[in-house]
Amino acid sequence: MRPYNFSAGPAVMPDDVLHQAAAEMLDWHGSGMGVMEMSHRGKEFGQIYAEAEADLRELLAVPANFKLLFMQGGGLAENAIVPLNLSRGQTADFVVTGSWSQKSAQEAAKYCTSHVAANTKANGYTTLANPASWQLSTQPAYVHICSNETINGVEYHELPDLKALGCDAPLVIDFSSHVASRPVDWTRVGLAFGGAQKNLGPAGLTLVAVREDLLDRALPICPSALNYRTVADNQSMYNTPATYSIYIAGLVFKWLKAQGGIAAMEARNMAKAKLLYETLDGSSLYINRVAQDCRSRMNVPFYLRDESLNEAFLAGARERHLLQLKGHKSVGGMRASIYNAMPLEGVQALVNYLREFESQHA
Amino acid sequence: MRPYNFSAGPAVMPDDVLHQAAAEMLDWHGSGMGVMEMSHRGKEFGQIYAEAEADLRELLAVPANFKLLFMQGGGLAENAIVPLNLSRGQTADFVVTGSWSQKSAQEAAKYCTSHVAANTKANGYTTLANPASWQLSTQPAYVHICSNETINGVEYHELPDLKALGCDAPLVIDFSSHVASRPVDWTRVGLAFGGAQKNLGPAGLTLVAVREDLLDRALPICPSALNYRTVADNQSMYNTPATYSIYIAGLVFKWLKAQGGIAAMEARNMAKAKLLYETLDGSSLYINRVAQDCRSRMNVPFYLRDESLNEAFLAGARERHLLQLKGHKSVGGMRASIYNAMPLEGVQALVNYLREFESQHA
Repeated sequence: MRPYNFSAGPAVMPDDVLHQAAAEMLDWHGSGMGVMEMSHRGKEFGQIYAEAEADLRELLAVPANFKLLFMQGGGLAENAIVPLNLSRGQTADFVVTGSWSQKSAQEAAKYCTSHVAANTKANGYTTLANPASWQLSTQPAYVHICSNETINGVEYHELPDLKALGCDAPLVIDFSSHVASRPVDWTRVGLAFGGAQKNLGPAGLTLVAVREDLLDRALPICPSALNYRTVADNQSMYNTPATYSIYIAGLVFKWLKAQGGIAAMEARNMAKAKLLYETLDGSSLYINRVAQDCRSRMNVPFYLRDESLNEAFLAGARERHLLQLKGHKSVGGMRASIYNAMPLEGVQALVNYLREFESQHA
Repeated sequence: MRPYNFSAGPAVMPDDVLHQAAAEMLDWHGSGMGVMEMSHRGKEFGQIYAEAEADLRELLAVPANFKLLFMQGGGLAENAIVPLNLSRGQTADFVVTGSWSQKSAQEAAKYCTSHVAANTKANGYTTLANPASWQLSTQPAYVHICSNETINGVEYHELPDLKALGCDAPLVIDFSSHVASRPVDWTRVGLAFGGAQKNLGPAGLTLVAVREDLLDRALPICPSALNYRTVADNQSMYNTPATYSIYIAGLVFKWLKAQGGIAAMEARNMAKAKLLYETLDGSSLYINRVAQDCRSRMNVPFYLRDESLNEAFLAGARERHLLQLKGHKSVGGMRASIYNAMPLEGVQALVNYLREFESQHA
């Protein structure tokens, strides 16, 4: 059995997917070619691409008026690509609830007026701001949130409803670290983007779902390869896409369907998160500072009250085959990322170790 | 034995590399993790990255005053990224010798004055323009060439010497489709970029080699993730890099070293190209229109004088396990791409088929 890998991303992949990828490495379906070796314009890769897109559309119930784009550069590149495509050089609003949305607000200022409508930094990014309290601009080009903050472990359990706030602007969500972990309410979303390296596949692939009416707003300085209209009109093949990564993501999509789809994953993810948070909350050694109503089901940061035990904790974890539990360098402590590919057994093994370590250091 | 795959890119990979990648898919070097699953900040991937960079630097004899960057988006993205980083919004010069340099000249016009110093379109992109005939600007920010045109099959056998032309500007080369096929004369180069999907590894990875004195010229509108200084200062990890693709490229670099390095590859590539061009030139059925002194050693476009035989030619090739020989849609005909990973035996098999088909249709 492989160790349990709690990396925040790139992150654990389903064993079944990796086995299949290894088996097909030199010969995909009798074609005589590995997927890495195929022209992106050929019929073999065309089939891989079409199936990946259709499976993802089905899994996430993406409406017909949204385009699915397979781009490159991850969330940090999208922090520029979104305002290049959507801001029209006007004002965009940002709700800052952690490291990622903060970076998004900062990068956008190169291309438009970047207005911070709310900021939870004062409480250490441990809560979300109630949407009713957001100070939105009069007519923002869009409103940006990070729907799951990977570093701070804060997640919107429900997407905000801009219309209910009297705002007609499209909502942009960075769903990098919880995409495909739960359903998406597309009626509230104009654009969603996410790096693949947490829940979808290899690093270097970015998923963008964009409502068609938002495709034609790009600034003239937007690079052609990053222009949503150009990417959409060329089925993500204006430039050569990350073909192998799309293939791996496609295998993940088929694995998700075999698991019962996104609703089944959500139920499993809620059970995993509940087990871990209850263990942390019931302990006198560990602490998670995030408010109950916005705790991430994917990324669980926690601290040892006695931080001098950190190294001993991590060493013991490694001995028990529990890997990559060290917290992000910007916040310290520990972090357990429990994405789709982390089975309940992995969280149970972590919980067992948390209890064991606590009993040894009570 | 696998078929011989003449795809222009993504393209054939060395069997040894694919075998090793398959074997390590679920567990890299006893780490308990596949490479796709590793944090890019961890020591395991740190080792993979450091070895890949060092091996590439050794193979290509990259001088110490050049940074090697592992970026994303391929050559078409670099068509914007280069002027965003180097043009200062002034004038950049382009030598247009085929489809790729033409696209580069066009994209740059978004960010600077794009001056075409020479254009060989009038002769169907079958020659290069003598550098002495180039109409360079007075003080261009840089001079761009595509040192191997993948579609048109035109290659600079020697890089132009801008200093000898009285021009102090840095030379930018797009070496996507012949990188690592021969040595690079870095004394003549300021920046080189190339998509990985021909000679280095999977699509979605871009190699950039940039002289250090060119790192600080970016326009304020350059996205952070695409800013050479930012990428260089973060060892290509400002945003999450395409980790698995870097790993595969690293395996290719080790394979290249085992083959005897770049000088050995160049000798082999020259022998492969000689065999193929001599067969085409000695035929009354096939024709290659590119001038002798600038024929690409990597991409060999050719035509059947009787184009009604095209489908029969391709069908017969597939029967003989010779794949992806159809020419680019923009120029038609055939194309054999014979990158590093194509063995001499593959070219010999193609030559045998060319002769057989010709004898049947004489």
